[in-house]
Amino acid sequence: MEWINKSRVLIVGLGLMGGSYAKALKRLGYHVYAIDRNMESIKYALDNNIIDKGSDIPDEKLLQEADTIIFGLYPAIITDWIRDNQKFFKSGIIITDVTGIKGKIVYEIQDILREDIEFIAAHPMAGRELSGVKNADESIFRGANYIVVPTDKNSAEAIEWCKNLGQILGFSNVSVLSPDEHDSMIAYVSQLTHCIAVSLMTCRDNHKLADYTGDSFRDLTRIARINEDMWTELFFMNKEKLLTEMDLFIEELQSLRNYIENGDADRLKNKMRLSTQRRKNFDK
Amino acid sequence: MEWINKSRVLIVGLGLMGGSYAKALKRLGYHVYAIDRNMESIKYALDNNIIDKGSDIPDEKLLQEADTIIFGLYPAIITDWIRDNQKFFKSGIIITDVTGIKGKIVYEIQDILREDIEFIAAHPMAGRELSGVKNADESIFRGANYIVVPTDKNSAEAIEWCKNLGQILGFSNVSVLSPDEHDSMIAYVSQLTHCIAVSLMTCRDNHKLADYTGDSFRDLTRIARINEDMWTELFFMNKEKLLTEMDLFIEELQSLRNYIENGDADRLKNKMRLSTQRRKNFDK
Repeated sequence: MEWINKSRVLIVGLGLMGGSYAKALKRLGYHVYAIDRNMESIKYALDNNIIDKGSDIPDEKLLQEADTIIFGLYPAIITDWIRDNQKFFKSGIIITDVTGIKGKIVYEIQDILREDIEFIAAHPMAGRELSGVKNADESIFRGANYIVVPTDKNSAEAIEWCKNLGQILGFSNVSVLSPDEHDSMIAYVSQLTHCIAVSLMTCRDNHKLADYTGDSFRDLTRIARINEDMWTELFFMNKEKLLTEMDLFIEELQSLRNYIENGDADRLKNKMRLSTQRRKNFDK
Repeated sequence: MEWINKSRVLIVGLGLMGGSYAKALKRLGYHVYAIDRNMESIKYALDNNIIDKGSDIPDEKLLQEADTIIFGLYPAIITDWIRDNQKFFKSGIIITDVTGIKGKIVYEIQDILREDIEFIAAHPMAGRELSGVKNADESIFRGANYIVVPTDKNSAEAIEWCKNLGQILGFSNVSVLSPDEHDSMIAYVSQLTHCIAVSLMTCRDNHKLADYTGDSFRDLTRIARINEDMWTELFFMNKEKLLTEMDLFIEELQSLRNYIENGDADRLKNKMRLSTQRRKNFDK
C-alpha cells in the first residue's frame, strides 16, 4: 500500500510500541486495527479511541481487511504467528515489525512467508521504562532513530515504503543497515548498556544511597528498570554479538582498574582524553 | 563568621565550582574575593562582576580580610597551599572545601592547621561536563546534594555553619557523612560510574555510531567527557575503595555475561527484577 490516509493498518501485539504506533497512525487519519491476546489492552485502546477495531484472537476478518500489518510481538513468537495466520493476509501487502534484533528473525520470516507478500524489517529505537498500551506515547519517536533493515530479498519499493513509515511516525532520523550491521551496533549501544545498568544496580546493596546520588548515577541506571521477559529474549537471540561486546568492555574496564592500581597516570589520562574526544561526536 | 550578608568570602581556586559558588554568594549580597594562579580567570570574573576583588597570587591583604575561605583547588595541592599561607588567615575563622574525596585530605589539613582556625569539609555533588570559571553556573546546585563531612575534631557550630552554607547556595539536599562513609559512597555512585562511562566510550571504535544511538547510550556516556587531571587525582586518592567497587561491578557483569552464554533465563531475570525494584527507590 501507499502511505495514504484511510488505508487500514493492523497492529499485532498492542504493547508500548504497538500502542504508540497506533496513536500516531490514528492521528494521521489511518484506520487502525489491533490484535492482542490480552483483551484488557484491546478494550483500553477501543475505549480511548487509540484503535478503530480490535480482537484478542487472530480474527480472519481483520486480517483480510488489513492493507499492511505491523508486528509488535515479542521476537520469539513472530515467526510462528505469521506461519499460522498468513493464509488470511491480503495478497500483495507489505508487512513490517518493531523488533530489537534482526539477524535471528528476518531471514526466518522471509523464508516461511508467502511469495506474494513482502516482509521488510524495521527497528524503532525508542522506548520508555514503562510497558503496555496504557503507557503508549507517540512523543517517544521525536528525536529518535528509525532503522530500516533490508535483506537481498527486499524490493526498493518496500525499503522506500518502510523509510516513509518511519518519517510519518515522527522519527527524527531514518537510516538503513543490514541485519548484521544492525545487530552488532545494537549489541554495543543498547544491549551492553542495559547489562551495565543492571549490574551497576545489583552489584551491591544501595538502598541507603538514593539521598546521596548525583545525576551521573541516575543517568547510568535509568534503564535498570527493565522488562525482564523482553530483554532476556533479545539478549539470547543476539548472544554471540552481545558476548563479544561485553568481553571488549570488561577487558577495557579491567585495564582502567589496573592503571588505577598501578598509579599509571599517563595511560589513565590517555583513556580519558580519548573518551572526551569521542563523546563530543555524540553531542549534536 | 555567621552567614550574614556583607561578610567577605574568599574563594581559592576559581574553576567551575569556585566560580559557581562565587556567583551564588555574590547574588546573595556577600563580598566575594578570589585567588587563582590563572590571571585570565580572575580577569574574567572581575569583568563579569562575579567577584569584587581578585589576585593571581596568595595576596596577603585578601587573606587577612577574609571572614571565611572556600577551597576550590585540586585535592593534591590544598594541604600545601594552606600550610604555606595560613599565617595570613584571620584568627577564629572557619574554612571549607569542595573536594570530591575526603579521607585522604581532611585529616591531613586538620593536622597541620593553626589551632585558632577550623576546617570543616564539604562535598557539593554538582558538576558539568565543562570546566573553568567561564562555565560557572549556580543553577547546577538545584536538585543536587551537598554533603558535610565532619571529623571528631569539628565543633557542632562549624557543622551547622557548613550545612547552612549548602542551604544558602541553593542545594536541594544537605546531609552529613563521616569521611569513610563519604568515600565509600562516592567510589560507587560517582567514581565507578565515571570509569564505566570512559570504558564504554573507549572499548571499541564508535565514530560511525552517533547516528544510531538511542538515549540509553547517550545517558551512560554523558560523563565520558571528563577532566582527566582532576579525575586521575580523585581516583588515586581513593584507590582502595574505588578498586573494591570496580571489582564488585566487574564480577557482577561477568556473572550476567555467563548467564547469557549459558542461556540461564531464570538467573538473568532474577537480576533484572532486582535491578528494577532497586531503581524505583531512586525515582522520587
